[in-house]
Amino acid sequence: MISSVKVVGLGRVGTAVAARLAERGLTIDVSEPELVLLCVPDRAIAEVAASIDEGPWVAHVSGATSLGALDPHTRRFSLHPLQTFTLARGPEQLDGAFAAVTAETDGARELGYWVARTLGLQPFTLADGARDAYHAGAAIASNYLVTLRRAAGVLLESAGTPPQALEPLMRRTIENGFELTGPIARGDWATVEIHLAAIRRERPELEQLYLTLAEATQALS
Amino acid sequence: MISSVKVVGLGRVGTAVAARLAERGLTIDVSEPELVLLCVPDRAIAEVAASIDEGPWVAHVSGATSLGALDPHTRRFSLHPLQTFTLARGPEQLDGAFAAVTAETDGARELGYWVARTLGLQPFTLADGARDAYHAGAAIASNYLVTLRRAAGVLLESAGTPPQALEPLMRRTIENGFELTGPIARGDWATVEIHLAAIRRERPELEQLYLTLAEATQALS
Repeated sequence: MISSVKVVGLGRVGTAVAARLAERGLTIDVSEPELVLLCVPDRAIAEVAASIDEGPWVAHVSGATSLGALDPHTRRFSLHPLQTFTLARGPEQLDGAFAAVTAETDGARELGYWVARTLGLQPFTLADGARDAYHAGAAIASNYLVTLRRAAGVLLESAGTPPQALEPLMRRTIENGFELTGPIARGDWATVEIHLAAIRRERPELEQLYLTLAEATQALS
Repeated sequence: MISSVKVVGLGRVGTAVAARLAERGLTIDVSEPELVLLCVPDRAIAEVAASIDEGPWVAHVSGATSLGALDPHTRRFSLHPLQTFTLARGPEQLDGAFAAVTAETDGARELGYWVARTLGLQPFTLADGARDAYHAGAAIASNYLVTLRRAAGVLLESAGTPPQALEPLMRRTIENGFELTGPIARGDWATVEIHLAAIRRERPELEQLYLTLAEATQALS
């Protein structure tokens, strides 16, 4: 659909995106690109967008930022890769991840989907007004997964056991389709009480976290 | 160290364990085994153990159950594979996982480590009195990971987006070493407030979960 893209911002996302576009044969170093793809921090999007002469397509890769930040451009969309990126990996980290595409016209959506697929991503449509709930969900899944690992690791350490032993367990929990097992799944409240007593003894600061998660686990079952 | 094991209980764990022991050349169908390995539900361990004539080694694979449940046997240990199992997979699901070995003598620990390694597990030592904290940590890492996925999925659904898009994100969060990114990592409280407003609008029952996790994320950073 297009053959030239200028990627602005070579952080963790922009580096992977630019490398993948080049791999796919797009020209990424051109003075008059068909698409300017902003991979800058969220807070910089509006300022950078406003500095671009109108004409080319302009898009951003933020999950949290409204399309309005791309004003005054009207040929615009956003494409948020639902993935966490590191500079230690290359463009292959895009493979198989999903992308939320937000667009106001059929043409913009068509281009957004095409760019997503060219990147190796599986696109879906995200309404601009639903970004907040979408982004909250993404943050829970990703950031709070780190929190769980840390909380669980603190308890394993308090038991004199290696926290890195949790990693194969957590990977397989995902690979097995997030099937709920364990005490709450089988209504074993005695074990839940034993956990709480252990947490109160070893790491009382984690009691509220355990309780809130136990309640949510029941509510979401 | 031993050449015969009787596995009692062919549920999710026992089936994988028995298949792996057979793969490794141990005799698993013998009238006088050197080790009886109880893979029965936690609540059944004491009764089954008491029904076994004294003589062979007796062990269980429960993370939560004290060695005392193996009374009157004194040649005993426990070996808890820190993994979630499914009947849909075979013995390969043991590979690379860790195992908590609890023992009261050097000989018992030595045998427990040998059995763990024979199964493909990486053994570490767990004190019998520290099981409660260890097991609480394991439950947080595994069961509450399911809860996070469900809570995040509910929010993606409320945004009209596909919850299965979360899976590559969650896998990579683990593969990238649980590095914390996102709004809390960068002190972006405006985004946290936007998430909370979205949750209150779409799924108010998740507000306490989000808040508690946000606080724990800060505290554990």
